[in-house]
Amino acid sequence: MAASKCSRLAGERSRQFLASVDTFLFDCDGVLWRGDEAVPGAPELVTGLRNSGKRVFYLTNNSTKTRAMYADKLGRLGFGAEAAEVFGTAYCTARYLRDVARLRGKVYLIGGPALSRELEAAGIAHVGGGPEPVTGGMKEWAGLEKDPDVRAVVVGFDEHFSYMKLTRALHYLREPGCLFIATNTDTRLPLEGGAAIPGTGCLVRAVETAAHRQAQVIGKPNSYLYDCVVSECGLDPARTVMVGDRLDTDIQMGSRCGIRTLLTLTGFSGLEDVKSQQESGNLSMVPDFYVDSVADLLPALSAVEH
Amino acid sequence: MAASKCSRLAGERSRQFLASVDTFLFDCDGVLWRGDEAVPGAPELVTGLRNSGKRVFYLTNNSTKTRAMYADKLGRLGFGAEAAEVFGTAYCTARYLRDVARLRGKVYLIGGPALSRELEAAGIAHVGGGPEPVTGGMKEWAGLEKDPDVRAVVVGFDEHFSYMKLTRALHYLREPGCLFIATNTDTRLPLEGGAAIPGTGCLVRAVETAAHRQAQVIGKPNSYLYDCVVSECGLDPARTVMVGDRLDTDIQMGSRCGIRTLLTLTGFSGLEDVKSQQESGNLSMVPDFYVDSVADLLPALSAVEH
Repeated sequence: MAASKCSRLAGERSRQFLASVDTFLFDCDGVLWRGDEAVPGAPELVTGLRNSGKRVFYLTNNSTKTRAMYADKLGRLGFGAEAAEVFGTAYCTARYLRDVARLRGKVYLIGGPALSRELEAAGIAHVGGGPEPVTGGMKEWAGLEKDPDVRAVVVGFDEHFSYMKLTRALHYLREPGCLFIATNTDTRLPLEGGAAIPGTGCLVRAVETAAHRQAQVIGKPNSYLYDCVVSECGLDPARTVMVGDRLDTDIQMGSRCGIRTLLTLTGFSGLEDVKSQQESGNLSMVPDFYVDSVADLLPALSAVEH
Repeated sequence: MAASKCSRLAGERSRQFLASVDTFLFDCDGVLWRGDEAVPGAPELVTGLRNSGKRVFYLTNNSTKTRAMYADKLGRLGFGAEAAEVFGTAYCTARYLRDVARLRGKVYLIGGPALSRELEAAGIAHVGGGPEPVTGGMKEWAGLEKDPDVRAVVVGFDEHFSYMKLTRALHYLREPGCLFIATNTDTRLPLEGGAAIPGTGCLVRAVETAAHRQAQVIGKPNSYLYDCVVSECGLDPARTVMVGDRLDTDIQMGSRCGIRTLLTLTGFSGLEDVKSQQESGNLSMVPDFYVDSVADLLPALSAVEH
């Protein structure tokens, strides 16, 4: 009999679960760390999983770090990961443009230096990036010079997002042939102590509203990050789990990809959110399992190892 | 028998129509002028209407001009209006905060100098306005100092719109008691020669996405501009017409207010847009009448005058 949805992983059930999984897909922020501090026990868990022959990958919607920057941070916090195990939206957006869209032309980029570097690494030329001061009035904004080689607009996290950038994006997107890609649509970035700042989703909605078009979204809950893991590394969906702290991104992506899902309560979503999704019948946002923290799996892991 | 919807005003029908109207509510851009040029014949029509005893008011979603600035422009282009006849969203937003919301506290303003001046004229203190450079990183943005007296966020057209302003708006709007007002939600400002720049609606959607809240909208198609005319000047709805170039703002507002609606084809919407609204059954966006230009009413007006 199938376990009912959203059961707590503890005791014997944890041991059975670990024995049934070969590949762990972890979201990072709110799962393995919060801000610049590892979730207590998380580095030990990830190291232990690897030592007992499990494979570990990192799937993150955050577009402000390259693969290498993520590997650095994972190393610094004791997870000891390699860049090739990291599937962030900066890397995956560049990969999508090169391998799926087969872009012939430049990108107009609303985004930060990490996205810029991953585009360069993929051999994709781009304009934009950095601050853009306001000059002139409406007539000048309507007549801003366009780079004739731009064939795609990419929107990621950009602290220099501005009306001028929005205007440039609109000019390019009025060409029906211009691709429109968003790294992710998270509405807020939660920070320590309940603080929050606007997420990339706010910038994406502004550009979509101007352009009268919807962006193609690279990040979770869409499946492209998962597709990248599958095509670069291979995995058995029946023996894979997505571990995340958000129902609307991590858990929904896992459901869409047909893999098991594990919610950890160290981040964004809580059990009351699960309940309200259950009541609304949105079962794709209800995880198969939950833990208070990924560290709760440590005892079961020791049992497997010995 | 009622005339079928969206009939052309010409000949005898125009004369009957003019005789049945006491009060004309005109949208401005795309109706009376385009950019800085009057629609040919429009000043003569408005002057003629006034000379034959009709009352004329101007209802505009544009928040970048004060009443006085509009009266100046109307005068310069030959319409000879008074500031008290102008109901723009800069003026009406300030009026709403003072008279309807009875705001006790300051406004955090995303908007330009005209909105700022109308708030001042209504005695409403505000912070924000002008450029705001990016400083620090995520931690600093999460901890931006808040003015403890702010009780409302107002979003209007702001060429200095930026990630920092979006972040400040989010901080204020996380307080459930903080009002959230948008001047209007037009997605684009159309300019001469088919050009367009992003409209206030883009900024509003960005702030709404961050705040997880919807703004109250002052502009058309909501009825507040009309309500201001009614309460300041009085009118007989049965003898009033809204004249505009946009189905989704002007015509829909007229329908919602139970007055007749006249579409002019010198601006944003065309007859093909009317057809598609008819086919979708959105009758509130189908005007009662249309003209190629408001100047088409000149012959009928001469017939009434003489």
